[in-house]
Amino acid sequence: MKAKITITPKRAVLDPQGKTVQNALAHLGYTEVGAVRVGKYLELELADGDREAARRRLAEACHRFLSNPVIEDYRLELE
Amino acid sequence: MKAKITITPKRAVLDPQGKTVQNALAHLGYTEVGAVRVGKYLELELADGDREAARRRLAEACHRFLSNPVIEDYRLELE
Repeated sequence: MKAKITITPKRAVLDPQGKTVQNALAHLGYTEVGAVRVGKYLELELADGDREAARRRLAEACHRFLSNPVIEDYRLELE
Repeated sequence: MKAKITITPKRAVLDPQGKTVQNALAHLGYTEVGAVRVGKYLELELADGDREAARRRLAEACHRFLSNPVIEDYRLELE
């Protein structure tokens, strides 16, 4: 089983890294690019087993350790 | 239009950040988690327009600037 976790800054939070990427792309000629947000992406291999239990455990790990829920959102997909 | 770009280290490349996350999770009790790979995630706002042209332009930006094609793969989704 594989889990894919995407962690992004919350809408209301300033994202200087994204702003920097946007400016850099504009300087390189990609002026069609508007707001950019930069986040993290994690791919985890999991032992096969109970999907729902795995999802619960991972959601807890995301909430407690992998993301900062004050300033970040996470999205968890199992496949 | 929104573009989502996921940049991950290639399979053959060591990913010390992923290894560190895996070890940390194991120490925290998440021993069911196997290999972890850590990548980057970018969300770009784009002016509406020709989808195929936008995809071509962004694929070029991914290849030339946003990823390091020697050690990283990217995945580009438009929505």
